[in-house]
Amino acid sequence: MAPAALLPLLALLAPGLGAAPAACDRDPARLWCRSPDVAAACQAPGPGAHPSHPAAAPVELSLFYESLCPACRRFLVQQLFTAWLLLPPEALSITLVPYGNAQTCLMHEAKNFSTYFPVIFCLESGSSVTQTLEACLQVYAPQLDGTRIAACVQGDTGAALMHRNAQLTEALDPPHQYVPWVVVNGKHTDELQEEAEASLLGLICRLYQGEKPEACGSSRTPEARPRCRR
Amino acid sequence: MAPAALLPLLALLAPGLGAAPAACDRDPARLWCRSPDVAAACQAPGPGAHPSHPAAAPVELSLFYESLCPACRRFLVQQLFTAWLLLPPEALSITLVPYGNAQTCLMHEAKNFSTYFPVIFCLESGSSVTQTLEACLQVYAPQLDGTRIAACVQGDTGAALMHRNAQLTEALDPPHQYVPWVVVNGKHTDELQEEAEASLLGLICRLYQGEKPEACGSSRTPEARPRCRR
Repeated sequence: MAPAALLPLLALLAPGLGAAPAACDRDPARLWCRSPDVAAACQAPGPGAHPSHPAAAPVELSLFYESLCPACRRFLVQQLFTAWLLLPPEALSITLVPYGNAQTCLMHEAKNFSTYFPVIFCLESGSSVTQTLEACLQVYAPQLDGTRIAACVQGDTGAALMHRNAQLTEALDPPHQYVPWVVVNGKHTDELQEEAEASLLGLICRLYQGEKPEACGSSRTPEARPRCRR
Repeated sequence: MAPAALLPLLALLAPGLGAAPAACDRDPARLWCRSPDVAAACQAPGPGAHPSHPAAAPVELSLFYESLCPACRRFLVQQLFTAWLLLPPEALSITLVPYGNAQTCLMHEAKNFSTYFPVIFCLESGSSVTQTLEACLQVYAPQLDGTRIAACVQGDTGAALMHRNAQLTEALDPPHQYVPWVVVNGKHTDELQEEAEASLLGLICRLYQGEKPEACGSSRTPEARPRCRR
């Protein structure tokens, strides 16, 4: 995440709640609730708001995909992005292994998953995977430099990153037969793949050993909901 | 949706499946599966793929919100958008009543929910609600004219649209006390609001009387999954 000093100051008034920090308008991370500081400032429950007790490991999901494959776009947009939005980070950990230069370079430049995943969602869900990188960066990661990503794509770094992803893909056991290809907690089976494509949220909810998150239909006493008075 | 002739031709090769139509790369509607034609062309199950039998009415959800209110942004991004992505249109029908000129004008210009909702999601989830309209249009609705929307915002049409939304809001019974304010099948109760904020997907799944969609954890025999061979 970019230091606050790099973000243009934009006053945002949350009616009835006084002036909200500029980060509430500027910082996508607030919405994803990945940063406790920003979440608190913007009245969103942060990742620590629902500590699992006892501590449980997140479900580890790896997705091998091609950035232009229609079925991959559909899985990433409809299943993976929604599960990520709905589940807290302690329940789900995602690794993306794309075949597609721009996305590997974006990940390399951004480093942080919470920074690059919304950009990748934007690319995959929008009007053109290949023509909207600048627009998606402006919306979700204005602190990233599009020219650095373009240089990576056209240079040796991009080729090396793609080669590494190809090696990771070739090393899959069992070997993959199609994409999107899902590996859950280190394992791929037809049943896991089928369940992930039918309802990834349901699969993660079933596998996660910690206290069930709200999105899994838990009946725990709700926190106070952040709302705006008019 | 823009006629295909207005869309730049962009060849997209879905590996192993031959050339996919340009619309698969250009048209966000494919991903939302709202258009049977495009869905079929792009190997996505369309809205008619799971006819409910017997026919059941969709759950009608109205959201009254302010475009800059942090709690509204969170609900729209996390609950509403994900439910819309995961559920077929026969299960969920959404009405947005925003307080915010740009979004009322966008809705007025776009007319079609499947066109404007991704743009509104983009605005609400991104780095700035107020500074990214052009970028969000480029990604999700390149056929719309940003200058027409700007003219609406600054002119009488925008004022009239806002006035109408204010009247709709004032007519709520019971009167609303905060935003986001949810009306489900014409009704607002504390319990419905609470359930919607905890898991809108779960609420819609509970209320929908038709055959349960896959996202609701149904165990119906799955369709053949569209995948890409490598």
